[in-house]
Amino acid sequence: MSFELALNTGTTPRLSLAEALAATRDAGLGHIGLWRNRIQEVGLERAAELVAESGLRVTSLCRGGFLTAAEPAEQRAALADNRTAIDECVAVGTDQLIMVVGGLPTGDRDLVAARRRVRDRLVDLVPYAAERGVQLVLEPLHPMYCGDRAVLSTLGQALDLADGFDPSVVSVVVDAFHVWWDPEVGHQIARAGREGRLAAYQVCDFNLPIAADALLSRGMMGDGVIDFGALSAMVAGAGYTGPVEVEIFNAEIYARPADEVLTEMTGRYRDLVLPHLTGAGQPART
Amino acid sequence: MSFELALNTGTTPRLSLAEALAATRDAGLGHIGLWRNRIQEVGLERAAELVAESGLRVTSLCRGGFLTAAEPAEQRAALADNRTAIDECVAVGTDQLIMVVGGLPTGDRDLVAARRRVRDRLVDLVPYAAERGVQLVLEPLHPMYCGDRAVLSTLGQALDLADGFDPSVVSVVVDAFHVWWDPEVGHQIARAGREGRLAAYQVCDFNLPIAADALLSRGMMGDGVIDFGALSAMVAGAGYTGPVEVEIFNAEIYARPADEVLTEMTGRYRDLVLPHLTGAGQPART
Repeated sequence: MSFELALNTGTTPRLSLAEALAATRDAGLGHIGLWRNRIQEVGLERAAELVAESGLRVTSLCRGGFLTAAEPAEQRAALADNRTAIDECVAVGTDQLIMVVGGLPTGDRDLVAARRRVRDRLVDLVPYAAERGVQLVLEPLHPMYCGDRAVLSTLGQALDLADGFDPSVVSVVVDAFHVWWDPEVGHQIARAGREGRLAAYQVCDFNLPIAADALLSRGMMGDGVIDFGALSAMVAGAGYTGPVEVEIFNAEIYARPADEVLTEMTGRYRDLVLPHLTGAGQPART
Repeated sequence: MSFELALNTGTTPRLSLAEALAATRDAGLGHIGLWRNRIQEVGLERAAELVAESGLRVTSLCRGGFLTAAEPAEQRAALADNRTAIDECVAVGTDQLIMVVGGLPTGDRDLVAARRRVRDRLVDLVPYAAERGVQLVLEPLHPMYCGDRAVLSTLGQALDLADGFDPSVVSVVVDAFHVWWDPEVGHQIARAGREGRLAAYQVCDFNLPIAADALLSRGMMGDGVIDFGALSAMVAGAGYTGPVEVEIFNAEIYARPADEVLTEMTGRYRDLVLPHLTGAGQPART
């Protein structure tokens, strides 16, 4: 089946790995996206067992990246950490490592050089990933995070960065929260499809006002300003048929019972996103 | 002379118009950018007198815009308000009205249609502005404000919107805070210069972490992550020689004595911005 809904464990940070797997299964879902903290707190071997016992498929691992360091020792540490993350992907049975590329090093303001180092580190990592059948999935982050989390801010820039790498090893994720505002988004989603790099679609809303902790401004689909009809139609129109992960960082949602959050998330997905992926919704505006 | 430093009254919201004019003159500056509230609280006639008596030149008026309404009555009100703002420009002797185009109407998620309405309203306004010798200066805002303040998020998008209008009537402003993150910024600043639409350069820093009220995350140059050397060299390289306005919305700066803020702002401008405009700084990175 296409467009399977997946819980990303970033939505339910109070749940252990075992609890998140159980909650996902109890909600009738077959897919889950994992953050590395959930794996590391039980150890990789036990995490792999828990995932295997759950019968769930792991859509992606969050996250690799943070590749902008200028110091050689920090660069080596970043590469080692990303290789570990690739190994974790293999162990839990996903072929996607989501890459948040990193912001400016402290006190450094040279964006152009930071972006160049990201590319250099991808060159370093690609052989290791390719040998293990893991894709490095570049995630452009909303420009509000350019300084401290990702000097990669648009889908177009991510595809330019991916250019020259094998699409089976370097691809991109469309995260609605990060890209909805981009006047180029339709064009670049279509390009990602054409170039065989449209690896994943993640949904959550962009809430207003922006939360006091800007990282927590993600919202349940329908609560913010994103036009999921238009965006989902673009993604499906570009040929995407894979799972759709819901990843919401939001203090109010963190405080609610997880089963209630999963029920709401499933309903919102069914009402606001899925019809526009399958073509059952209103035609997309152009 | 080129690259004259200007205070924007958004940096000193506790000062009345008379106080802001005096503080600017006392700091040895010859230019000031005005927000409309400073004019409206004394009345247009008195404001024009105060400006004339001050001997200062007004760089620009903030702000026109908010053109995204879908309802005819609201559209008419927005046009009337913008015509008033154009009249205010004439009265205080500036030929630049900064345009913040507006966000999504409440409950509306159709970005494409909102952007189309901005263009339609510009068509409505351009003759009135042209007859009075006032430029509508489009300001792309940081994408974090796309939902509620400006569906215009990049310089490239602003120049696309301006395309077809006379450059003497529809131009763009480069505000460092809004555009520093954009991987296309160098290319689009050069394009603005080539197209004769590079009307203004505003500086302030992008502070991290983002302030709890996201509107107040602007900082004094040097306190945040923006590379003013690179950006200023791009602006000068595109042929810009006009005034440079400092517009900082920041609760800590609001709380400080205005003379101290103006002194610091003048020093930071002289050290971090001006050398890269005149070519006395380090060569820009490419």
